[in-house]
Amino acid sequence: MEIHSEFLDALTPSSIRSITAKIRDKASEGIQVISFAGGLPSKEFFPIEDIRKINDQIFDEEGGDSIQYAASDGYDPLRKYLVEFMKRYQVTDIDYKNILITSGAQQGLAYLSKGLITPGSVVVVEGTSYPGALDTFRAYGASIVGVEMDGDGMRMDRLETVLRENQGKVPFIYTIADFQNPTGCSMSLERRKQLVELAEKYDTFVVEDGPYSLISFNGEVMPAIKSFDRYGRVIYSGSTSKTIAPGLRIGWLIADHASIQKLVYLKMRDDLQVNNIAQRQVYHYMKDCDFDGHLRMVTDVYRRRRDVMAKAVKESFPAGTKLLLPGGGLFMWVELPEKADTLEMFDYVFQKNIAYVPGVFFRPDGSGKNTMRLNFSTTSEETIQKSIPILGEMICQYLETHA
Amino acid sequence: MEIHSEFLDALTPSSIRSITAKIRDKASEGIQVISFAGGLPSKEFFPIEDIRKINDQIFDEEGGDSIQYAASDGYDPLRKYLVEFMKRYQVTDIDYKNILITSGAQQGLAYLSKGLITPGSVVVVEGTSYPGALDTFRAYGASIVGVEMDGDGMRMDRLETVLRENQGKVPFIYTIADFQNPTGCSMSLERRKQLVELAEKYDTFVVEDGPYSLISFNGEVMPAIKSFDRYGRVIYSGSTSKTIAPGLRIGWLIADHASIQKLVYLKMRDDLQVNNIAQRQVYHYMKDCDFDGHLRMVTDVYRRRRDVMAKAVKESFPAGTKLLLPGGGLFMWVELPEKADTLEMFDYVFQKNIAYVPGVFFRPDGSGKNTMRLNFSTTSEETIQKSIPILGEMICQYLETHA
Repeated sequence: MEIHSEFLDALTPSSIRSITAKIRDKASEGIQVISFAGGLPSKEFFPIEDIRKINDQIFDEEGGDSIQYAASDGYDPLRKYLVEFMKRYQVTDIDYKNILITSGAQQGLAYLSKGLITPGSVVVVEGTSYPGALDTFRAYGASIVGVEMDGDGMRMDRLETVLRENQGKVPFIYTIADFQNPTGCSMSLERRKQLVELAEKYDTFVVEDGPYSLISFNGEVMPAIKSFDRYGRVIYSGSTSKTIAPGLRIGWLIADHASIQKLVYLKMRDDLQVNNIAQRQVYHYMKDCDFDGHLRMVTDVYRRRRDVMAKAVKESFPAGTKLLLPGGGLFMWVELPEKADTLEMFDYVFQKNIAYVPGVFFRPDGSGKNTMRLNFSTTSEETIQKSIPILGEMICQYLETHA
Repeated sequence: MEIHSEFLDALTPSSIRSITAKIRDKASEGIQVISFAGGLPSKEFFPIEDIRKINDQIFDEEGGDSIQYAASDGYDPLRKYLVEFMKRYQVTDIDYKNILITSGAQQGLAYLSKGLITPGSVVVVEGTSYPGALDTFRAYGASIVGVEMDGDGMRMDRLETVLRENQGKVPFIYTIADFQNPTGCSMSLERRKQLVELAEKYDTFVVEDGPYSLISFNGEVMPAIKSFDRYGRVIYSGSTSKTIAPGLRIGWLIADHASIQKLVYLKMRDDLQVNNIAQRQVYHYMKDCDFDGHLRMVTDVYRRRRDVMAKAVKESFPAGTKLLLPGGGLFMWVELPEKADTLEMFDYVFQKNIAYVPGVFFRPDGSGKNTMRLNFSTTSEETIQKSIPILGEMICQYLETHA
């Protein structure tokens, strides 16, 4: 006897996780897929030994308290630490009651969706954006409008048109301002300021998702959109999934006190609280361990992998391929010649046990059939060097024989 | 700039957590409240040393994999272990794909609410029930109807009347069949079978919440309602919050494959996955450590505390007080003389730094103003022996001077 509802029956597998499932299926047959499809940080660098020590420290210092029921708003030492941490992004005008700890940043996005999306809502996003967020916005009933981007992020003139056309229907504008998933682009300073003004002008909010901001290849960290938020129009979403480890599931939302309080009430209904130990692991790791050294090490590795990948793509992909060289993050965005269809091509390439994500998954309007996202963070330089030419060859073959 | 919506603005602090907040406020002034208000297991018995070893084992065996992104349906070894575990409740006809791991049982209830409650829904519950569940059902738009109970749990004749009167509007019947929160009552075997038949007859589901089932003072574990589920009408909700530790946030839902698949799609939108380490901690603890010995030890302590509390209540509470002696779980339900109002009385008693939960919090119809729930699991026998007489005296005083 299957449960049914309009809400549940409309849910489908999230598009990227369906690729993950294909990869898992091959793995269960003993076949190792070279995946450029993931959105994962590289597990070889997770700070296992530091966390192992922290685990003991937590139990030594707190005993049973560390795994008792705890507050819905989060572990206060972590919240207070994050107030300091946010200064890295020039966010200075907050205290710990502006922060709600969530079970990963995805949970924060789900809370905002549940809380703010109503029938007829239009969520405005970058024209190419993170499908996990778009799927959540859609599940809670929003339609999605993407705004054309250029090298400086979302175009503000286009955004204003969209906001004007949908006035009163936009609960929030969702943006990944730094090293965006999937394009790797960052929004310019000027546009960050304009975005805040547009949110005020059209009486809406900005949800700023910042998981990649510290994965910066030249070490520079841009001021968050939140740092320009004179009106209280920006809700910031943070995460340590890309900087420490995703399996800990720690994220946070930053908003005014009253909004955070409402989200805490929602959390009480939803799952009571975040895992205690994970909150302490993140707190102690950031505070007591060499978080900055770790970041430098990881970004250095990722930068080298990006460089190797960019070179191999240029050498082996068909003529007419364009790639965006990202200044940080985990992803490279590739535009193949017009006639390519990366969704159709997926299974062809997958024969060689290589995976990528078709670009259409990131486009709310279903455009971009000749694009793909390549992840460079989880694959060694050697494997990238060996596999990207195979991918390139498969693409060339496919275009010759199928397109 | 505060966020607003009909959904968010209707949320209020969960009633019991508002008491917890009062206790925290006193604690921040350095005042230790004797709380009989909590729904907590006793932290002094959490198996810290076993979990410490498991933490090392996880990192030794799995390294970075243990904190990488993972599957939304849960950690398969835990799911497979739970298939065996459920045999304790005579639930035998399932495989691991019938199980979704959740971030605490509360999250499972929230998923079912979100998934199944629509405008006009009526969720049917025991006449006295867990407010955390009721708050969630209400948040997602249901009205609540409580069904009168007696010593054998929900009365099936009354339930049938409610189901008939609300035909087509009941997404599910929510029940805590074993050592119920707050009354400590268990549903008889006969009624468990009848409940399944009524769910089938009136085309609805049963959500069976089983957090206390193993906290059984005579060691007996009743067959779950799910074990009588010939029709696929029962969704079982499990938890290790009361048997291992709540801060780990591990729960699970059991339903048919298709329903679990839908809930997995919801989880992908909601928070992607449960904390990896917690899933492994619970798996290894149940499989490799002396879980049954731990249960025996804990239930033995709780039973003794129950006995001491029952004796002290009988000796010190006003004449006309009735108490239900629970066969398990964490709670004792007390009915004071008719004229008492335990909600009004709360602050008076709280002057002496003693807390309980007013019974009206558990009654969807707002009745039971002369009742209260006392938790006996978290307070030592000595403290119970010392504090219950003070509570009794305060109640007597209050009834003489105020009621």
